[in-house]
Amino acid sequence: MNDTDRTGLWLVGARGSVATTVATGLAMMTSRAHGRDGLVTELPVFVDAGLCPLDAIVTGGHDVSEAPLAKRAAALADAGVIPASALVLVGDELDRADERLRRGYDPEEEGQAEGVQRLADDIREFREREGLARVVVVNVSSTEPVAQDDPAFESLAELESAWAAGRSPLPPSSTYAAAAFLAGAAFVDFTPSTGARVPALRELAEREQVPWGGSDGKTGETLVKSVLAPMFAARALRVRSWSGTNLLGGGDGATLADPDAMASKAVSKARGLEAMLGYPVEGPVHIDNITDLGDWKTAWDNITFSGFLGTRMTMQFTWQGCDSSLAAPLVIDIARLADLALRRGESGPMTQLGFFFKDPVDSEEHQLFTQLDSLGRWACAS
Amino acid sequence: MNDTDRTGLWLVGARGSVATTVATGLAMMTSRAHGRDGLVTELPVFVDAGLCPLDAIVTGGHDVSEAPLAKRAAALADAGVIPASALVLVGDELDRADERLRRGYDPEEEGQAEGVQRLADDIREFREREGLARVVVVNVSSTEPVAQDDPAFESLAELESAWAAGRSPLPPSSTYAAAAFLAGAAFVDFTPSTGARVPALRELAEREQVPWGGSDGKTGETLVKSVLAPMFAARALRVRSWSGTNLLGGGDGATLADPDAMASKAVSKARGLEAMLGYPVEGPVHIDNITDLGDWKTAWDNITFSGFLGTRMTMQFTWQGCDSSLAAPLVIDIARLADLALRRGESGPMTQLGFFFKDPVDSEEHQLFTQLDSLGRWACAS
Amino acid sequence: MNDTDRTGLWLVGARGSVATTVATGLAMMTSRAHGRDGLVTELPVFVDAGLCPLDAIVTGGHDVSEAPLAKRAAALADAGVIPASALVLVGDELDRADERLRRGYDPEEEGQAEGVQRLADDIREFREREGLARVVVVNVSSTEPVAQDDPAFESLAELESAWAAGRSPLPPSSTYAAAAFLAGAAFVDFTPSTGARVPALRELAEREQVPWGGSDGKTGETLVKSVLAPMFAARALRVRSWSGTNLLGGGDGATLADPDAMASKAVSKARGLEAMLGYPVEGPVHIDNITDLGDWKTAWDNITFSGFLGTRMTMQFTWQGCDSSLAAPLVIDIARLADLALRRGESGPMTQLGFFFKDPVDSEEHQLFTQLDSLGRWACAS
Amino acid sequence: MNDTDRTGLWLVGARGSVATTVATGLAMMTSRAHGRDGLVTELPVFVDAGLCPLDAIVTGGHDVSEAPLAKRAAALADAGVIPASALVLVGDELDRADERLRRGYDPEEEGQAEGVQRLADDIREFREREGLARVVVVNVSSTEPVAQDDPAFESLAELESAWAAGRSPLPPSSTYAAAAFLAGAAFVDFTPSTGARVPALRELAEREQVPWGGSDGKTGETLVKSVLAPMFAARALRVRSWSGTNLLGGGDGATLADPDAMASKAVSKARGLEAMLGYPVEGPVHIDNITDLGDWKTAWDNITFSGFLGTRMTMQFTWQGCDSSLAAPLVIDIARLADLALRRGESGPMTQLGFFFKDPVDSEEHQLFTQLDSLGRWACAS
Repeated sequence: MNDTDRTGLWLVGARGSVATTVATGLAMMTSRAHGRDGLVTELPVFVDAGLCPLDAIVTGGHDVSEAPLAKRAAALADAGVIPASALVLVGDELDRADERLRRGYDPEEEGQAEGVQRLADDIREFREREGLARVVVVNVSSTEPVAQDDPAFESLAELESAWAAGRSPLPPSSTYAAAAFLAGAAFVDFTPSTGARVPALRELAEREQVPWGGSDGKTGETLVKSVLAPMFAARALRVRSWSGTNLLGGGDGATLADPDAMASKAVSKARGLEAMLGYPVEGPVHIDNITDLGDWKTAWDNITFSGFLGTRMTMQFTWQGCDSSLAAPLVIDIARLADLALRRGESGPMTQLGFFFKDPVDSEEHQLFTQLDSLGRWACAS
Repeated sequence: MNDTDRTGLWLVGARGSVATTVATGLAMMTSRAHGRDGLVTELPVFVDAGLCPLDAIVTGGHDVSEAPLAKRAAALADAGVIPASALVLVGDELDRADERLRRGYDPEEEGQAEGVQRLADDIREFREREGLARVVVVNVSSTEPVAQDDPAFESLAELESAWAAGRSPLPPSSTYAAAAFLAGAAFVDFTPSTGARVPALRELAEREQVPWGGSDGKTGETLVKSVLAPMFAARALRVRSWSGTNLLGGGDGATLADPDAMASKAVSKARGLEAMLGYPVEGPVHIDNITDLGDWKTAWDNITFSGFLGTRMTMQFTWQGCDSSLAAPLVIDIARLADLALRRGESGPMTQLGFFFKDPVDSEEHQLFTQLDSLGRWACAS
Repeated sequence: MNDTDRTGLWLVGARGSVATTVATGLAMMTSRAHGRDGLVTELPVFVDAGLCPLDAIVTGGHDVSEAPLAKRAAALADAGVIPASALVLVGDELDRADERLRRGYDPEEEGQAEGVQRLADDIREFREREGLARVVVVNVSSTEPVAQDDPAFESLAELESAWAAGRSPLPPSSTYAAAAFLAGAAFVDFTPSTGARVPALRELAEREQVPWGGSDGKTGETLVKSVLAPMFAARALRVRSWSGTNLLGGGDGATLADPDAMASKAVSKARGLEAMLGYPVEGPVHIDNITDLGDWKTAWDNITFSGFLGTRMTMQFTWQGCDSSLAAPLVIDIARLADLALRRGESGPMTQLGFFFKDPVDSEEHQLFTQLDSLGRWACAS
Repeated sequence: MNDTDRTGLWLVGARGSVATTVATGLAMMTSRAHGRDGLVTELPVFVDAGLCPLDAIVTGGHDVSEAPLAKRAAALADAGVIPASALVLVGDELDRADERLRRGYDPEEEGQAEGVQRLADDIREFREREGLARVVVVNVSSTEPVAQDDPAFESLAELESAWAAGRSPLPPSSTYAAAAFLAGAAFVDFTPSTGARVPALRELAEREQVPWGGSDGKTGETLVKSVLAPMFAARALRVRSWSGTNLLGGGDGATLADPDAMASKAVSKARGLEAMLGYPVEGPVHIDNITDLGDWKTAWDNITFSGFLGTRMTMQFTWQGCDSSLAAPLVIDIARLADLALRRGESGPMTQLGFFFKDPVDSEEHQLFTQLDSLGRWACAS
């Protein structure tokens, strides 16, 4: 990588909790005000990967909200998501970041064909104005309801026909994916929304020769599952039930209280368990909106299992985490890694990013350490 | 391995809960009355290792107690450790196993030099009478207090001088290790006791060209630690404290209530955490004797950690397991794997067995999956 | 009470887990094979109440199943609900109890008017054949879906008209309540089903001058709530959210997996919290069917609260109980106390029994110790 | 009470976390900046007790530290114990409160006889200078090691002889109690230290006709115990073991890591359980210093119990509370109630305050609701 290269990180949902934490964190780390805990790409295994430095990342993004970043940051400081000192230390930088944000896509106000072009133009303009070598788009907006299948999803030709006919078949997350591809940017979906996962958009990414990945960041309960399930398997202990309850507030809690969105998330959460164990396991996964919890999440899992001669045993865990705080550094990691893929001229699904996701594209590998090994090998391959 | 080969599994503490579960389980599985859950060596990764079949394993052992195996089994069935049906299904086989047990070593009644010879003779006689190709000795007796250092530990010559002078410097676990080595058997310590871990005995194992291993079976809280600590490390989350409370009854609970024995166990438990994380972590590990819990153990761990920009979070887990049930299949696994080492003519510390232990000999690797990889590679190497 | 008096305990769902545990337990305690743990009416506070002795209680009941009691008991022993020794010690007594059971009400096979008469005849015949002074009917059958409102519920006259017209408006639980009243027996609903809680049946109980009560036995999570919520109130700590997850298998788990029945149970569980705290509290209550848990239930509650100057704090609890084992002694307690009400000639809602119920009839008192005080005062009033 | 009466609350350990939270909270509530959550004396049951208004309470106190209150408050705000807004809103009032603090007793620098006189003079001077009607002294300093018995404890005469002989037999907490009594103030020990609980000081309180009370504020794990243990008793469930682990940092954590102090606290914690259940229960109580937790405490309790026919069940709870935040309003409650006792001319042990304490003076009643009833009746008695 050229020493003077700079990389753009374009966030969809750029005024949300995760994006605000990303912007604040980059500013804090760049000004040396804070350490790099939580950043996977700062682990020794990535030292030879030649990833772009943190101070070479420039943020921008789309959002349908117009709330100032500084105000969002103040709310996050109150909730203990970011340190109160950040408001003073990097307030100016947040204001500058705010100027790089653009109006998001609202299907009520804009046709989809026009919208995609406008969004792509915003990304191109960001690259040119800031003199960026490459741009990575990451979707961190609220989870959307499961999209209804549409014939226009099936091929790029059908999608373009639909657009030509004035239809708007794509859900919002896919609209942003399309715009990213048209602008020559990588696209990664950190949410369980549809994003790039329809054949028409796979085709578009292929045509534009850009890499893409996702879906659904693995930040809490599923992260723990991805090491505990292999543990039971490694000891030949038979998991008999695995029940999970997730309590969360904030924007995500409210969204997921919508049963449609919840269906999307619950499926994504359940998928990996059978893959890791090799057999189906009973047990519901609940997601509840508890407004009092704000940006914090409490998950409780109850696991029943049997061992030698059928003896029954139990394990439980409770996870009390701050989702935005857990997600933000991973978004930065993903930006650095997708930037590397762009630099290497790779295109298509980034299966090497499975480590970060509940529902990794084109991969059935859900074991955390196997995923980390693959990622490390990919990153350090010359 | 010759198809007609049979292997001896000689248990120290042969009338205890773990050993009785081993004997019952082998009989149950051999008679096809039960599946093989809990047996690691039945996982696909070991299919090409050529391990000895379960029905080729013959049990024997030493114990200072004289309680009949069948009576011990009845108590274990009452406590839910083994199925009640076992008492009927394999009662006869337990009676036959009982006849293969011999009187353990009691320092009050026997000099150590004589004791070691007598124990070794018992093992040799077992091998000859049963027509066994090889014998593996596994210590599953109660944890003993931390042994006082003694100059006789330092070399085989000094140990033999001490014995010649009528002294008895070794703790009981080491006495059994010495007997195993003299009888040409492998020795593995499943407890945190001293076992073979003194220079004099390392020397003896070398002279007799036998393999040995240990220590302290990883069956509950530490097993979970060995996947959770690497999870925090893989996500660059900083563990700030890790506190553990272990409640257990039964023989082990009573023994560990003795502060000297507890010191031994707690040190063994704490050792791995720093190795896995790369930095020291505050937090006590308690072991309490709760007689009401019998053979069952409840562990609670509270982990505080920080992530991006220092945000503090918490994870807790509760493990409710049956130690004898968790340990017994691992003892069988160890017997099969040490038998393979003997067959291959390997000698000295079996570092490949670290997967099973809290305090693996001659190894600083504590991550479960890395340990399993090493073990699988060793087992399947031709 | 006359020394030779005997009392009948007629169980609806007489071959279910709770009823089988009741029958086994009465036989075990009468034969002095076991202590009286779990029986509230054996507490010192009831010593002067003159309750009927345990060996003066004769069981009978209705069930739509025909599975032999002894077989049900064997399954409960396997699951650890009752001791295995019971099968031998009181097997004969269970067989005798089995002969006192009658065919339950099946709306597919019997008109409701005829059914009620037949059920009432069964109860009368039981009383006469066994020479009983009084009979208490307790519903311990599976929870039924929430009943659809029907004009026939509104008055006895309308109910009788409906019956005369060949209609069957009552849900099964109410059919049994009607039969009990007609037979001059007390009726208590240990389930959240409708039971006697429709105006028509209240009227019938009044006409027949019999007492009745319920609903929904407080055996686990709600029991704990009924002391913890008052604790928060007593310390002026403000509860901000209270989320609960109940995992259970067995018959009840399967029934409650039906969303209609679950609605019934969840409402009943939620009702008390606001009454105890004086303000509404957010938080869902989930009930999940985990077949692997069998008769055992695991509940997890997460409570967020704030104190002085608004500081936020958290409490969690896990309850791992055996519902049948917790319910059975309460059913015996209720039989003895309703028998006392009958003896005293009391009729109408037994509000004094609120101590036992999640949804106490005609009472808004949910605090456990206040309920126990009321019950004790009532029982010992001469 | 006269409308213009003002009451002094003199805190021992006046620069500690609890005292700083008390001072901040009184200022915040007086300025109407905050609600009254956590204050028991604001519950409806106390409305007719005529307690002194919050804005009539003036704080002062002793401390061996000289750290400014405002600095302590800033640290508490950082730790989330008090709201950050308090630093601005009531900073001036904290500075004024700081001027009312006096140097604590240091046995290295002052003879005990002189020390007691000096401390008493400080309290008298506070009363006069501020024009206070009455003064209540509450000890909220760090827990001291268990005091060695001394013959001087046995009577006031012996204590005065010891003083006359230049000896210093009392532990610091008792020194403050003596000073309070000599100054005509009530004394309450919120810690498990000795305080007034030696015969010589009981005699002194009697002579000076002042009331006193304690000991060891019931703020977390023991508070929960005081409702759960009666719950098990009310349902005739037999508690078989009750194990507790308390993790805490801050000053108290460090002090209690000292085994001598821990002994004092653990005894105080264990005492009530047997009293509430009526039989002894096995199970250790651990207190561990985890510096990372700061002012926050995490307690985990594991309770095993058996019910009908001996069936074994389990309950666990986790309490994550902020000790200073839980203690501070209770200290204010105690001040108001002890002020009432002073006004009524009551003297000797205030057994009515048992509601607040793990180890209530002269009382074996540990059930929270029974204690609250007694307190309410006493307070509202005219």
